[in-house]
Amino acid sequence: MTATTWAYENFVEGASLDLGVKHVNAHEIIEFASEFDAQPMHLDEAAGKASILGGLSASGWHTCAMFMRMLCDAFLLDSTSQGSPGIEHVKWKKPVLAGDTLSGTVTVLAKRQSKSRPQLGLVTMRSELFNQRGESVFELENTGMFLTREAAA
Amino acid sequence: MTATTWAYENFVEGASLDLGVKHVNAHEIIEFASEFDAQPMHLDEAAGKASILGGLSASGWHTCAMFMRMLCDAFLLDSTSQGSPGIEHVKWKKPVLAGDTLSGTVTVLAKRQSKSRPQLGLVTMRSELFNQRGESVFELENTGMFLTREAAA
Repeated sequence: MTATTWAYENFVEGASLDLGVKHVNAHEIIEFASEFDAQPMHLDEAAGKASILGGLSASGWHTCAMFMRMLCDAFLLDSTSQGSPGIEHVKWKKPVLAGDTLSGTVTVLAKRQSKSRPQLGLVTMRSELFNQRGESVFELENTGMFLTREAAA
Repeated sequence: MTATTWAYENFVEGASLDLGVKHVNAHEIIEFASEFDAQPMHLDEAAGKASILGGLSASGWHTCAMFMRMLCDAFLLDSTSQGSPGIEHVKWKKPVLAGDTLSGTVTVLAKRQSKSRPQLGLVTMRSELFNQRGESVFELENTGMFLTREAAA
């Protein structure tokens, strides 16, 4: 652990962090869908256009996974993360289409130290992704578990 | 669409469906994590053992994706699915470890026809996955959109 590592103490209620940028291409949409969610609108441009999604669109779970990668790159891989008990909600607000560029932010909603395991803190975050037109396409609220700085030292 | 295709009308409140079986191996855990969630406990057996997860454990998002594949194989790929507006909640209740065998069920909680788009129905489902010891490891509640039989014909 370095001085810049994100431990429980580093999260500040109300603070936001930038999630960087992710370009979404047709190849990765199709690859993910072929393995996990082989619905036609996630596999084929024409089928996507014919669907209510309006084009070759990423599986909602692929958007979740891409979001997770953005979170990892933003700070999670240099943190004291101990995983997460779950997700409060996910909203797939608009289709994520091949060719889109995603950006986003994560905001700390609340934090509290665990009573049963005081070396752990729970951080509730709301994240949002936008496409290149600034439209909100994805929203997620979840709780992450982080070691305190002392416990991780 | 065939006579056995799952359209909105086929979903019955309270009815459950079997999600089949999925064996989870170390290779796929590491492959998914390397792309989307490269935290040490998802990449390395020793790091997993040292973590509160107790072994090489699937990313929670990987468990979501494996669940989606089980749902696809159980009925979704032979349905009038039009996607989903989002997830009510996900609970990662216990670690999913390399070598585990998952099984599960999906239960229809509620259904209603869309007022604005009567050709679409909304089906709210609760799904649960169990490991080979019968322990509940994953719970999800979400809403899917399905065309009515008439609209899909």
